[in-house]
Amino acid sequence: MSVCYINGELLPADRPALLPTDRGFTLGDGLFETMRAVNGRVLHLQAHLRRLAEGAARLRIPLDVAPLPEAIARTLAANDLRHADATLRLTLSRGPAPRGLAFPAQPRPTLVIAAAPYRPYPAVLYRRGMKAILLPQRRNEFAAAVSLKTLNYLEAIVGKAQAADAGADEGIFCNTQGFLAEACTANLFFVRDGELHTPADDCGLVPGVVRGVVLSLAQADGLPVRLGRYTPDDLRRSDEAFLTNSLMGVMPLTEVDGQKIGDGRPGKLTRTLASQYDLAIGG
Amino acid sequence: MSVCYINGELLPADRPALLPTDRGFTLGDGLFETMRAVNGRVLHLQAHLRRLAEGAARLRIPLDVAPLPEAIARTLAANDLRHADATLRLTLSRGPAPRGLAFPAQPRPTLVIAAAPYRPYPAVLYRRGMKAILLPQRRNEFAAAVSLKTLNYLEAIVGKAQAADAGADEGIFCNTQGFLAEACTANLFFVRDGELHTPADDCGLVPGVVRGVVLSLAQADGLPVRLGRYTPDDLRRSDEAFLTNSLMGVMPLTEVDGQKIGDGRPGKLTRTLASQYDLAIGG
Repeated sequence: MSVCYINGELLPADRPALLPTDRGFTLGDGLFETMRAVNGRVLHLQAHLRRLAEGAARLRIPLDVAPLPEAIARTLAANDLRHADATLRLTLSRGPAPRGLAFPAQPRPTLVIAAAPYRPYPAVLYRRGMKAILLPQRRNEFAAAVSLKTLNYLEAIVGKAQAADAGADEGIFCNTQGFLAEACTANLFFVRDGELHTPADDCGLVPGVVRGVVLSLAQADGLPVRLGRYTPDDLRRSDEAFLTNSLMGVMPLTEVDGQKIGDGRPGKLTRTLASQYDLAIGG
Repeated sequence: MSVCYINGELLPADRPALLPTDRGFTLGDGLFETMRAVNGRVLHLQAHLRRLAEGAARLRIPLDVAPLPEAIARTLAANDLRHADATLRLTLSRGPAPRGLAFPAQPRPTLVIAAAPYRPYPAVLYRRGMKAILLPQRRNEFAAAVSLKTLNYLEAIVGKAQAADAGADEGIFCNTQGFLAEACTANLFFVRDGELHTPADDCGLVPGVVRGVVLSLAQADGLPVRLGRYTPDDLRRSDEAFLTNSLMGVMPLTEVDGQKIGDGRPGKLTRTLASQYDLAIGG
């Protein structure tokens, strides 16, 4: 049975540990990070903790990130994953509170860290690339918390279910102005005429940690990189495309709404960046 | 100590009862209803349960509402509120599940019912009316779950905090097209030239139960009622305005961004509808 770290204690994951008044449960009032460990080493840990700390400050949830690396290490060890490839999920909520939206005077945030063996995405997906659909609903680039990795994940859940219903792997959101934003659980990139493009930070997306790493890798390669406002047509007319997140790294995107991107196979630059990313993480 | 109903059991509210893997906690994957009971009678119970059932069907969360009235009655009784004025909160999540967004094959939803003595809003608020600010962030009328009362409440939390920071009681959202939507925790009405106006259902709002009751009362009075697309200027130039939700009923709104609405006092139609609502609920 897996073990969760909950506010300093290591508890079996199947034991009730949260109060029914926890604002993470009642209001989605919190943040999370999904991380990957390779041989027990958490990838991009500082970037994840920085994003978490920034989000907590924005939402005024008290958080000291200094003890978190140790807490993560204890969680991995308690799950026999100290030297393994693992998936980590860190959830921070504002904690239990009386009814209502007002911040509790004495917040007692809830911190949960869960760990599980890393399950690679099927190799066939990397070989053939993911298929996506464009979702009819929109990402709200004018929301207060749009760029934070919050517990408000229903839009992603619904979008992912629509994609699955359509036989696709992912759903892509445009924002309310009609510009590409991101996929349900990944950031979006595409390549056109040798230039790498990704929606700009204000397009209604959570700037992913792997997105940042890929942008750095591309720039180090001397590849022209553009962050901008793009339409679905820009994606359809691209030469190649890919998705990124912390668990899958760089994943080719080869089809949108049943239409091939480029020749319908993972592109050359995609494969180069995927290899460089795999090399960088030592995976 | 208060007692919560959790999946058929009555448990002390300060005892951990939720798994750390509950999707209500990890992803905000669920719905809720806030209800008011007068002398132990839950107001508009069928309307609340109908909305909950519709939301659960939309989100594909299994739910049988038939046993809920009995569960609510048990919760009230366990809290010595069987004949009292009470606040009820019913929370439904998709329940515990492994990591990821995909729906669990065998969902075990979590149902929590909490009850507390009803605390009336200060009488002075009804006498002088609430003050609101217009929020800079926007409601997303193009979201998949925008009209559902979901656990994704961060935008409302942030908006309410901004209102409090500004010395106001409420924050009002426009949608991404700039039309009035709703307040953080209430629906919005205004009166102009003897006509009652409220943002239409597709403006990016949760159609509240009390909103529905007030619309019925107004129509029964022969009052012209318009559901439409309105701008902040429409509100500023109105003769009177009010807010509705299940706990406060009909609450006058007398100031927006420091500017008085009408003469800055609760309006005549507002007071009439508030009295009729109070009469209807037997409060």
